[in-house]
Amino acid sequence: MSILIRGGTVVNADNSEKADVLVQDGKIVAVGADLELPTGCEVLDASGQLVMPGGIDPHTHMQLPFMGTVASEDFFTGTAAGLAGGNTSIIDFVIPSPQQNIMEAYKTWREWSQKACADYSFHVAITWWDESVKKDMGTLVREEGVNSFKHFMAYKNAIMAEDETMYKSFSRAVELGAITTVHAENGEIVFQLQKKLLEMGITGPEAHPLSRPPAAEGEAASRAIRLAEVIGVPLYLVHVSTQDALDEIIRARNAGQRVFGEVLAGHLMIDESVYRHPDFEYAAAHVMSPPFREKHHQDALWKGLQSGNIQTTATDHCCFCAPQKAAGKDDFTLIPNGTAGVEDRMAVLWTHGVNTGRLTHEEFVAVTSANAAKIFNIYPRKGRIGVGADADIVLWDPTATKTISVKTHHQNIDFNIFEGMEITGKATHTISNGILKYADGDLRVEKGMGNYIKRPAFQPMFHALEKVAKANKPKAVKR
Amino acid sequence: MSILIRGGTVVNADNSEKADVLVQDGKIVAVGADLELPTGCEVLDASGQLVMPGGIDPHTHMQLPFMGTVASEDFFTGTAAGLAGGNTSIIDFVIPSPQQNIMEAYKTWREWSQKACADYSFHVAITWWDESVKKDMGTLVREEGVNSFKHFMAYKNAIMAEDETMYKSFSRAVELGAITTVHAENGEIVFQLQKKLLEMGITGPEAHPLSRPPAAEGEAASRAIRLAEVIGVPLYLVHVSTQDALDEIIRARNAGQRVFGEVLAGHLMIDESVYRHPDFEYAAAHVMSPPFREKHHQDALWKGLQSGNIQTTATDHCCFCAPQKAAGKDDFTLIPNGTAGVEDRMAVLWTHGVNTGRLTHEEFVAVTSANAAKIFNIYPRKGRIGVGADADIVLWDPTATKTISVKTHHQNIDFNIFEGMEITGKATHTISNGILKYADGDLRVEKGMGNYIKRPAFQPMFHALEKVAKANKPKAVKR
Amino acid sequence: MSILIRGGTVVNADNSEKADVLVQDGKIVAVGADLELPTGCEVLDASGQLVMPGGIDPHTHMQLPFMGTVASEDFFTGTAAGLAGGNTSIIDFVIPSPQQNIMEAYKTWREWSQKACADYSFHVAITWWDESVKKDMGTLVREEGVNSFKHFMAYKNAIMAEDETMYKSFSRAVELGAITTVHAENGEIVFQLQKKLLEMGITGPEAHPLSRPPAAEGEAASRAIRLAEVIGVPLYLVHVSTQDALDEIIRARNAGQRVFGEVLAGHLMIDESVYRHPDFEYAAAHVMSPPFREKHHQDALWKGLQSGNIQTTATDHCCFCAPQKAAGKDDFTLIPNGTAGVEDRMAVLWTHGVNTGRLTHEEFVAVTSANAAKIFNIYPRKGRIGVGADADIVLWDPTATKTISVKTHHQNIDFNIFEGMEITGKATHTISNGILKYADGDLRVEKGMGNYIKRPAFQPMFHALEKVAKANKPKAVKR
Amino acid sequence: MSILIRGGTVVNADNSEKADVLVQDGKIVAVGADLELPTGCEVLDASGQLVMPGGIDPHTHMQLPFMGTVASEDFFTGTAAGLAGGNTSIIDFVIPSPQQNIMEAYKTWREWSQKACADYSFHVAITWWDESVKKDMGTLVREEGVNSFKHFMAYKNAIMAEDETMYKSFSRAVELGAITTVHAENGEIVFQLQKKLLEMGITGPEAHPLSRPPAAEGEAASRAIRLAEVIGVPLYLVHVSTQDALDEIIRARNAGQRVFGEVLAGHLMIDESVYRHPDFEYAAAHVMSPPFREKHHQDALWKGLQSGNIQTTATDHCCFCAPQKAAGKDDFTLIPNGTAGVEDRMAVLWTHGVNTGRLTHEEFVAVTSANAAKIFNIYPRKGRIGVGADADIVLWDPTATKTISVKTHHQNIDFNIFEGMEITGKATHTISNGILKYADGDLRVEKGMGNYIKRPAFQPMFHALEKVAKANKPKAVKR
Repeated sequence: MSILIRGGTVVNADNSEKADVLVQDGKIVAVGADLELPTGCEVLDASGQLVMPGGIDPHTHMQLPFMGTVASEDFFTGTAAGLAGGNTSIIDFVIPSPQQNIMEAYKTWREWSQKACADYSFHVAITWWDESVKKDMGTLVREEGVNSFKHFMAYKNAIMAEDETMYKSFSRAVELGAITTVHAENGEIVFQLQKKLLEMGITGPEAHPLSRPPAAEGEAASRAIRLAEVIGVPLYLVHVSTQDALDEIIRARNAGQRVFGEVLAGHLMIDESVYRHPDFEYAAAHVMSPPFREKHHQDALWKGLQSGNIQTTATDHCCFCAPQKAAGKDDFTLIPNGTAGVEDRMAVLWTHGVNTGRLTHEEFVAVTSANAAKIFNIYPRKGRIGVGADADIVLWDPTATKTISVKTHHQNIDFNIFEGMEITGKATHTISNGILKYADGDLRVEKGMGNYIKRPAFQPMFHALEKVAKANKPKAVKR
Repeated sequence: MSILIRGGTVVNADNSEKADVLVQDGKIVAVGADLELPTGCEVLDASGQLVMPGGIDPHTHMQLPFMGTVASEDFFTGTAAGLAGGNTSIIDFVIPSPQQNIMEAYKTWREWSQKACADYSFHVAITWWDESVKKDMGTLVREEGVNSFKHFMAYKNAIMAEDETMYKSFSRAVELGAITTVHAENGEIVFQLQKKLLEMGITGPEAHPLSRPPAAEGEAASRAIRLAEVIGVPLYLVHVSTQDALDEIIRARNAGQRVFGEVLAGHLMIDESVYRHPDFEYAAAHVMSPPFREKHHQDALWKGLQSGNIQTTATDHCCFCAPQKAAGKDDFTLIPNGTAGVEDRMAVLWTHGVNTGRLTHEEFVAVTSANAAKIFNIYPRKGRIGVGADADIVLWDPTATKTISVKTHHQNIDFNIFEGMEITGKATHTISNGILKYADGDLRVEKGMGNYIKRPAFQPMFHALEKVAKANKPKAVKR
Repeated sequence: MSILIRGGTVVNADNSEKADVLVQDGKIVAVGADLELPTGCEVLDASGQLVMPGGIDPHTHMQLPFMGTVASEDFFTGTAAGLAGGNTSIIDFVIPSPQQNIMEAYKTWREWSQKACADYSFHVAITWWDESVKKDMGTLVREEGVNSFKHFMAYKNAIMAEDETMYKSFSRAVELGAITTVHAENGEIVFQLQKKLLEMGITGPEAHPLSRPPAAEGEAASRAIRLAEVIGVPLYLVHVSTQDALDEIIRARNAGQRVFGEVLAGHLMIDESVYRHPDFEYAAAHVMSPPFREKHHQDALWKGLQSGNIQTTATDHCCFCAPQKAAGKDDFTLIPNGTAGVEDRMAVLWTHGVNTGRLTHEEFVAVTSANAAKIFNIYPRKGRIGVGADADIVLWDPTATKTISVKTHHQNIDFNIFEGMEITGKATHTISNGILKYADGDLRVEKGMGNYIKRPAFQPMFHALEKVAKANKPKAVKR
Repeated sequence: MSILIRGGTVVNADNSEKADVLVQDGKIVAVGADLELPTGCEVLDASGQLVMPGGIDPHTHMQLPFMGTVASEDFFTGTAAGLAGGNTSIIDFVIPSPQQNIMEAYKTWREWSQKACADYSFHVAITWWDESVKKDMGTLVREEGVNSFKHFMAYKNAIMAEDETMYKSFSRAVELGAITTVHAENGEIVFQLQKKLLEMGITGPEAHPLSRPPAAEGEAASRAIRLAEVIGVPLYLVHVSTQDALDEIIRARNAGQRVFGEVLAGHLMIDESVYRHPDFEYAAAHVMSPPFREKHHQDALWKGLQSGNIQTTATDHCCFCAPQKAAGKDDFTLIPNGTAGVEDRMAVLWTHGVNTGRLTHEEFVAVTSANAAKIFNIYPRKGRIGVGADADIVLWDPTATKTISVKTHHQNIDFNIFEGMEITGKATHTISNGILKYADGDLRVEKGMGNYIKRPAFQPMFHALEKVAKANKPKAVKR
């Protein structure tokens, strides 16, 4: 099966050029001006359109069991919705319960994800520690193509990783050539403030942001970054939502440390006033962690994207419908945390990032796919329109418009946090694994069309102390 | 008993003027030009000299039981040495063992300190938590004149306070109108690096700074400051030794937070190369925590003093002699941590702070006494030459010189970290409680001459969340 | 003539205490509990009130000839209005025209100011350079009690000082022991943007802030601070209005440089939307330079005050009435720049600074009087309630309320930028030179009651290069 | 003519892969595994080697007339030396004298550069202003392929651009779609300090760094960046040599401004102590502007490269031999400013950047070629190994060693600032325009082999004020 994309402008993270793209057997086999049409090859007219690498959402939670319920979007519906928005890959999370064998958890998630209709991969969370975890991390890196491990610094008494666990996991990642990632919020602060708010009788969603102040995120960002510095491991902060955390990233990067940041489309656009909405359903539908923030943080996050201090955009796509959210009607701490967005991220970012002059076309590709592919080591297989790359391609019409709405979205959730937003610039066709899976509103997907993507380990690294020792400093002073 | 100090220049933190000072019954009763000499009044000629508030060292550990031994300097010899250096007050620490009743610990320290020959007060450390601790904090503040509580973020498996303890203690301090203080080093990092260094066979004092990297201090500073921000309590960081921690203080102060920093004379002058000295005794004599640092940190700390981001100078005076230090001959983690300096701080600071043009005379008074008195709420009783103040006065000859040496110092320790330093500017006479206790090299002290100083609580404060709730934001959104 | 102020709380920048204050012959002669009432002494009951140093407004322009007109407020009416608001001193500006002999200008201003009814002093502007200016600076410092020189970096083709003039004036100030001050806006940028806006047809007051962007202020602040650094002279930035300029001050102060900042009450409270008001009179009444700014700058300025990076508050009091402002009806560059405020500063600052918890009582005194007195070297004669100080005192009722209005203010201008602001906390009585000049709404002033205040030079200083040479570095390398 | 490069690892700024590269008729025509060998094609064995884009030195001054003499390196010898070091392009400077017609100057330089043996392009300096300059900028952009204009903020009374000239030139660049560049040092400060140093009798090279303090560079960087911000033009700072200037760049980039920085190999490696060398020839040989700096700046500059805040490396290659330098024997201000390096930059950067772990291979390519190509709009024609690109390629042996020396270098100068430096990693073969011009020490060059490279203009831009007006804000408020 082959497709010739004709007459568009190919946009990569480093350059744009008018060029045709030829796809065969799931791969890109030619990029150039006026390519010849092979026999039996489908033609896609891309005149006036941009031809870009399919989006990679590096942060989703399909069918996640969480807070007593299970996310309503599964791997099939979720990847389908992603395709409708121009995305061709997601990186989801395996989250073992504390004490659960992590290989077992990994296998469970692999099982669940079989039905995905676009490519997917997994970060694995380290939620506890013993020798089996250490060993399994090795198996995952060496045999299963997992090169990133996640640490929740929030959710005390549940999946929170203490400093000791983080130290040990980070040290293990260094040995294995893996990258570490964190959800940066101080779980103790959140726990105590939740308790205090409930005691003060503030029980509604308006308490949610109060229980998770920017300082709690800034603190955890600082802590994780310093731990990573001491150990010498690269670090990726998921869903940076505050100037506080961003400032920590900037400080570290300016000192030469390998630290990366991710921002969610939602955190770029929505402020915390949503939690004070008088309608519980509306307010609760926005409950996710970290919460939406005061407006000045959004301005800071955009500047983070522009300056390159934040490298990726994601959604933390994790769907809970109104009946699920209702579990926290009388106690905001029981509202399942999560919002959707995998379908909307790219259009929102184009409208508010590119059309406003904040980002160039090339930077758009960088922050929606190429940077994620580089950071998680699947570039240029993913994240680039180039010969030899996977044929994961989006055709983007920069002039097309639509209004985002729960009524028309493909996501399996009864709410859209971007409801009513008018966007200009959207995916018209999405090719994934060389197959045209989305065309002008028509989703052509079947369960199981997606592949699990192994991500190779990085070069071996060394604990910072070993570098110090090697760089000589002291081994043993002669006395 | 009365003394007339004649012909000197009175230096306070806000101003200098030529003036005489009259002392009676332990108090300053007059400050002015050409005061009349009362009958029976001793006269001290201060021509060419500065008349300044006696130094306050807000960080000492006399006769501290620590790491299996007891500090060699007791409250009598320590306060005497302080007087010889121009100091008239110390603030020492009550450090309960985990699970030890804190009132019991407090009483023990009060007992030990009876023999002091200059004034003293106590910070109390919160090393664990239960309801008794909470109750006893109230008793200490309301009845015993304790308005500051210390938290060790280092020393895992010993006196380290976890986030939960800190949160609870900080919250209690807010209710009581007390100030919180921290030793800011991440205990988990230190613990793990110590272990790793020993495993790597790096067992000498050269490992000490490697086990306590600047990042460990920066991390803890950030964490404590953010906790204090979330709770709304003022915070004082003892012995700031790194640019990393200083930067955290600056960030918070510039955001309007009430955060204070203390620097030790040693950290201003000595760099980490001492730990690589081939003589174990020499290297071990410098082992204290946080360790001495690379030179650029010293430059940053001086600038912190100049800019007012660091408000106080101290010594962390905690004496261990060579036979005690020898406990760590084969394992640096067993070297008792501590160095001396209560006698030398003011002269070192004058020589390297005032004579170099970094600090004015008035700023010298601010950072050696007035600021500590203000921060710990005993100003202007202490820290100011003014009518009604305690007669704690040092006569300072800015042209006098000497060479600091273990051979001539009064401190009860067999080493001086400032050995050989030539100083210009020193105390010639020290008056404490209206009594001339040090005169031109002659110490005129007896056990028990010093008084315990009660420090009143601050105004009642509120948890930051309560302020938010009051400032309205949400209590309960009507739905 | 003597007055005993009884029963109040004396607030100084370093401390508060219940104490009576006795005033005689223009001086404070006693401060203490339960002072005896001398014969013939008037008594002021200060129960429930604060007794503070009278305000010093370090930035006013009474009867200034500017932009083709003359400010409507003269030295008599202006100092009277100041007294009504609790102020006992102003520092105004002598502004020679380019090429005008500066001694001549100085004498003109001294003449104009004879009628003042409270104390006053003068900064002198250096608007051009030749040898006579250099010589006259010496005369002013040595004989006339001027210790501060102002430089306008804006107003191209008028009074703007180029880098060469600034370099030479700053160097001269170092020799003389004077402090330099700057109006920090890049005059070239302003000039070009004004031209461009007029060309674009944007001629109304809404163009005013566009012609003076924050970057123009940040630029000039950076340039002045670096010039001062290179030369080694202390620098004071008047009317800091942006985060941009404040950040430059913070950077320099954190590096140990002696840089000070002043903020106007107006810049703390008012944002730039006023310039877009459809009523020309309203918009034009707010035209001053630098302009009012976007809200986030106000937040930054408050934090500057809280952190001590900004030391003083002022008003740049410079009154032009509607008929004067009308000169710029068709061309915003012709609107005379200036707004009033000398009467309102203290009440505005109390209401929004102290009542909101941003500033303590002591800090209020620091930023309304003590710091200005210190920076301009008239402390503790001014800026402190203490024996020997000038009897410049305000009695402050922290619970009294009023609404600011042009209808009730004493200022000689037909507009009030704080119109309608409800304040809590105000001056009830103002004593100046030992005379009760304002009592409960009653102004008891006569022309000429005020004195010219000589401000002594600072200690001799050295050009930074001379310090380098002295500190040795190279003089002449032997070759 | 064709060449097949076999068995190497192709390194681009975004990725590395094992691949062969086929070169034909000056272009790269294929990149891939196991390419077939065309008939008559030369084969280069690149086993064990890296195949990278040829270096671009964006800052050279061949045969520059300057300070009364002419740089000893001409366009032929200079480009030849560059080829020996792996460089295939330079961007040199046309520098009109004040009042000289800039087209005339441009033609002169084009004439001189005919003999170059590798590709070259020109920045054009704007050293004065009138309508002809404005017009000629248009001609240069539209017809001559110049898209960058340089502004010297130093060299008062010679080629220094005042704020007015910069404002006008920057505004013109916006219209034309050109990028602005600056030499950032405050010329007034330098001029005054030079004068003062000579007056103080400090006349040797040791005075050079004293006359150009870091503050002078920080000042100018801030000023240029703010001007660019106000106008809305992209800005590139050449030879950033201080933390001060870097901090300004970081501030602006973090605010989303398009600002770029260049660092010289010399500033990364050499500190200012060279100027205090007792041998005049040695010291004078290092005289360039900005001068080499204290060591801490070098550390900051490396971090700037690592963090991406500095994007390019260059040399400011400008050769003057000892007899030329001798002009300043008695007056350091007369020493011709300039040092060499075009041959050494890449090896120095590899040795101290890559081998130390600071930079990855890909980052090395970014900072030696790809970023310069992008910023000056000749990417991916230059700066990338890809099909269609110019065949400008260096084969790099990462294990090869040599010692840099004036005795062996190809540069036409009698001194090497890197003398004695042992490097590991160097160019073995350099292909330029598809021709093998350097092979294992053998330079195969002829005059005129290089081409002038036209650089297309960027997209049209708008003055920031026009953007504001468009984004609506005010045009004319209705009154």
